[in-house]
Amino acid sequence: MDLTHIEHIGIAVKNLNDSISYYENVLGLKCYAIEEVKEQKVKTAFFHIGQTKIELLESTAPEGPIGKFIEKKGEGLHHIAFAVTNIENALQETEAKGITLIDKKPRKGAEGLDIAFLHPKATYGVLTEFCEKK
Amino acid sequence: MDLTHIEHIGIAVKNLNDSISYYENVLGLKCYAIEEVKEQKVKTAFFHIGQTKIELLESTAPEGPIGKFIEKKGEGLHHIAFAVTNIENALQETEAKGITLIDKKPRKGAEGLDIAFLHPKATYGVLTEFCEKK
Repeated sequence: MDLTHIEHIGIAVKNLNDSISYYENVLGLKCYAIEEVKEQKVKTAFFHIGQTKIELLESTAPEGPIGKFIEKKGEGLHHIAFAVTNIENALQETEAKGITLIDKKPRKGAEGLDIAFLHPKATYGVLTEFCEKK
Repeated sequence: MDLTHIEHIGIAVKNLNDSISYYENVLGLKCYAIEEVKEQKVKTAFFHIGQTKIELLESTAPEGPIGKFIEKKGEGLHHIAFAVTNIENALQETEAKGITLIDKKPRKGAEGLDIAFLHPKATYGVLTEFCEKK
């Protein structure tokens, strides 16, 4: 397993514009991209901070994963994404160690990355993503 | 405001040893320190990942902040900590912009850092910490 850094932190928000304004005007970060990921029923906004990104996620449908998360837990920290050097190997190794995967194979996520999620029930409550920039 | 990077991600766990084992044996990270912060009623474990650290937090008392968090929301992502170059200035600037602070003045946190928290009600549900290594 070769995790190099935290690629991004995903944060579920009710209103993308309001929260972008907080991250820009209070914390001084700069939103450099807004992208809709239709498959995941989300609109995302990205900020760089050091080696890592912050990804704000607003649901575009109540039955989408972010809509359901906010209904259950409220706005807030949603997932952590680790950059890996070989996502296929990382998934294989993780599954071999008995960890349940949400995605057995990588799929395309925001920013064109290959991504896959591990199941939070297997990772002590932390929804965990692997990302590889091919 | 001068946020340089994500200093750490705080993760609330029920059992420090079990979750250390997951981060070490599955994700391949190395726990380099275990520290009790009595004032916060927690035992913490630290891992480096790139520029950032992961801080696992196990409550040492049910009425402590991590105990209450787990009772309400379950295990999982708890807070995000930004490294700042001048924590006093950062707090002053944040408060001047109408954001409620939990700590109006910095206090000592784990690893000897000066730390202060912003209130999650003012930060779109994300418990947010500033840290400065003096």
